[in-house]
Amino acid sequence: ELELSLEQIEKGGYEHFMLKEIFEQPNAITNAFRGRLLPALEMIKMEGVQNNLSQFLEAKRIIIVACGTSWHAGLVAEYIIEELTRIPVEVEYASEFKYRNPIITPKDVVIAISQSGETADTLAAIKLAKEQGALVYGVCNVVGSSIARETHAGAYTHAGPEIGVASTKAFTTQITILTLVALHLAKEKGSLTKTEFNELVHELERIPEKVVEVLQVSDAIKEIAQSYAHATNCLFLGRGVNFPVALEGALKLKEISYIHAEGYPAAEMKHGPIALIDENMPVIVIAINKGHYEKTVSNIQEIKSRKGKIIAIVTKGDVVVKEMADHVIEVPETLEWLTPLLTTIPLQLLSYHMAVLLGKNVDQPRNLAKSVTVE
Amino acid sequence: ELELSLEQIEKGGYEHFMLKEIFEQPNAITNAFRGRLLPALEMIKMEGVQNNLSQFLEAKRIIIVACGTSWHAGLVAEYIIEELTRIPVEVEYASEFKYRNPIITPKDVVIAISQSGETADTLAAIKLAKEQGALVYGVCNVVGSSIARETHAGAYTHAGPEIGVASTKAFTTQITILTLVALHLAKEKGSLTKTEFNELVHELERIPEKVVEVLQVSDAIKEIAQSYAHATNCLFLGRGVNFPVALEGALKLKEISYIHAEGYPAAEMKHGPIALIDENMPVIVIAINKGHYEKTVSNIQEIKSRKGKIIAIVTKGDVVVKEMADHVIEVPETLEWLTPLLTTIPLQLLSYHMAVLLGKNVDQPRNLAKSVTVE
Repeated sequence: ELELSLEQIEKGGYEHFMLKEIFEQPNAITNAFRGRLLPALEMIKMEGVQNNLSQFLEAKRIIIVACGTSWHAGLVAEYIIEELTRIPVEVEYASEFKYRNPIITPKDVVIAISQSGETADTLAAIKLAKEQGALVYGVCNVVGSSIARETHAGAYTHAGPEIGVASTKAFTTQITILTLVALHLAKEKGSLTKTEFNELVHELERIPEKVVEVLQVSDAIKEIAQSYAHATNCLFLGRGVNFPVALEGALKLKEISYIHAEGYPAAEMKHGPIALIDENMPVIVIAINKGHYEKTVSNIQEIKSRKGKIIAIVTKGDVVVKEMADHVIEVPETLEWLTPLLTTIPLQLLSYHMAVLLGKNVDQPRNLAKSVTVE
Repeated sequence: ELELSLEQIEKGGYEHFMLKEIFEQPNAITNAFRGRLLPALEMIKMEGVQNNLSQFLEAKRIIIVACGTSWHAGLVAEYIIEELTRIPVEVEYASEFKYRNPIITPKDVVIAISQSGETADTLAAIKLAKEQGALVYGVCNVVGSSIARETHAGAYTHAGPEIGVASTKAFTTQITILTLVALHLAKEKGSLTKTEFNELVHELERIPEKVVEVLQVSDAIKEIAQSYAHATNCLFLGRGVNFPVALEGALKLKEISYIHAEGYPAAEMKHGPIALIDENMPVIVIAINKGHYEKTVSNIQEIKSRKGKIIAIVTKGDVVVKEMADHVIEVPETLEWLTPLLTTIPLQLLSYHMAVLLGKNVDQPRNLAKSVTVE
C-alpha cells in the first residue's frame, strides 16, 4: 500500500525537516538574492536601503539587534558591513540592549534580525530604537510578521517555511540579505572599487552551486559523526568572519544533540580555554585558506600538541591542515567575505548527523520553541 | 623544626597563590583607587585622563581591546562607561581587532587592558590603533611593561604581583580603574548629577570592606563545591553588567578545574542553550536585586522546571531566589554599577575550591601561561 502522511509529504523524502531545510539552501539563497543581485547591471537592488539611503550612508553607527542564530548572522554581517562600507557596526543581544539604556540617536541605523519576525526581545529592542528616533531596518523570513510591520523598512529572506526548530536556511539567507545590504551601501558610498564590487557580485551569484557541492559531503560527515557522537563536549574555532560561524556551529550541536559545544575566536584559546584540551575533546576548526590561514594553522598545532582531536573545515585542495587534522571536510574556494555561506553547511550537517546517531528528536529538541515570543 | 621554604613565605600562610590573591582583593582594590578616588573633594584624579580630556570627551567611540580575563573587564567597563558617560563603547578581542582592518580614526580613543602589559595580541592592536592616529590609554598591572611604554597615557592597577596563572585581583582592579575612568569622564562631561556622582564615589570607597564580607563565605562555597566537583559541565548566567562576570566565572572554572563551563547572558538561554539543561547540569546564576531582578528570577524558574541545579549569587536578605535555588551565596547590597566587584568574588572561590577538590594544580594549570607573549 502506498500511503504517505501529510508530514511525510511535507518532508519531501527527507527523514527530518532539518535535513530537508539544510538541502534547500541552494534554492533558499537563490530566492534571497533573486531580483536583488543584478550582476549584468553591475548593481544591487534593495528597495528598503535605497529609500533610506542617506540615513544609511550618514549613519554614525549601524546597530544590529537579534537573538540566538540571528545574533550570529548579525556578527557575520558586522565583519562584512564594516569591511565593505567602513561604517562602524555594533551587534547587541536584543535582550541586553533593551535593558541597558543603550546609546541610540536619530543618526543611528538599527538592523533587527529574526526568522519568525515575532521574537519578543527583538521586538522590544525595535520599540526602544524607534522611540530614540533611529531608522529601523528589519530582516525577517515570515511575511507580514510583527517585526516586518514594526520596522521602517526591511527585506524578507524568502527562505520559505522553516519547520525544524534549529535554524539552518534562515541563517544563510539572513547572511545573504545582509551581504546584499553591505554591497548596496558600498556601491553607493564608493567604498569598493568597481572591480571589487563586481567580483563580489559575480561570486555571490555562484554561491548556490558551491553550496550544492558542499552538501555532497553529507555522507562523509555522517561517518565522522560516528566517531564523536559520544563526546560530552566540543569546541568550535574560527577567525575573522568565520568566528561567528564557529559560534553558530556550536549552538546547533547544543540545540539538537545536547552536547555542550562552545565557539571561540581561535586566537582566544590560549587565554584560557586551551586548558580544556585533552584526548577527549573534539575541536572543530574552520581553517580555510582565506583570512589568517597561517595563524589558524598554528592554533591547530597547539591543539594537536595537547592531543585534542581535530575536525577541520578546509579549502578544497588544502594539504597543510590535512597533514595535521584527524578529519578534514573540504569546501570550494570563494572570496573571504562569502566563505560563511559555505563553511556553515558542514557544521549544520555535523550536528544533524550527531543528533540522529544519538536518537534525539532533531526537529523538536527538548526545551526549545521555534520562535521565542516571551521576553 | 621551623623551616619555611621561600615559596611558603611568599604564599603568606595560604595553600595557593590563587587563594592568597583572592583574599588580597580588599587591599588591591584600595591600592587601585588610592590617591585617585577623592570623596571628600568630590572628585576623581586620573592624570592620564585629565591630560587627554578633550580627546576622551569628544571621542566618537571608545574601543577597548584585550584578551581573556582582561577582555571580560572590558565588557564590564562597556556597560559602566556607556551608562555613566553616554559615550559609545565597543569591546574587541585584540586578536580579532588586529586582523580585521578595524575602523579607527583620530577621533577614537582606544583602551588596552592587560595584567602583564606584555600580551602580544594586545600590543599588536595598540600598534595598529596608533598608526590610525587614535589616542591609546593603557590599563596594566606590571610597572614599566611594554604596553605601559607603548601607550600614550594610562593607569596602573597597583594590584601587586599576581603569581596564580588564573587572574583574580588583576580583574577586580582593572574594573576599579575603568570605573574611575568612567567617573572622571562623567564628572567632566556632566553626564551624572552631583548626587549620582557622589553616591557612586562614596560607595566605591566602601567596596573593599564589602569584599571582606564576601570573602567570609569561602567555607560555605567549599561545601557547595563538594556537591559539584564531579560535574563535567556548567553554565554561568548573568544580565547587564553582571553578564561579563558570568563569562569570567566560567573562564576561571575552565582554566583551573578543566570543567567545561560557559557563560551566557541569562535571557539568551531560551534561544538555544536551554536544551542542555537537565538534572546533571549545574547552573550558576547571578541574581542580585539590581538590574532586571524579576527577569532573572523568571530565567531561574525556566531552569528549575527543566531540573537544572541552581547555585545563585543573591543580595543579602533575598528571599525569592532562596526559595527556588539549590544553593545561595549572599553578597552585600551595593549600587548596580559596582556589583561586579562583589559578585566576582564567590565565582573565583567556587572555581578555586572545585579545582582543589579535584586535585588540580591550581597555580599552574595545564597548557596555560601567565602572560601570552605570542600572537
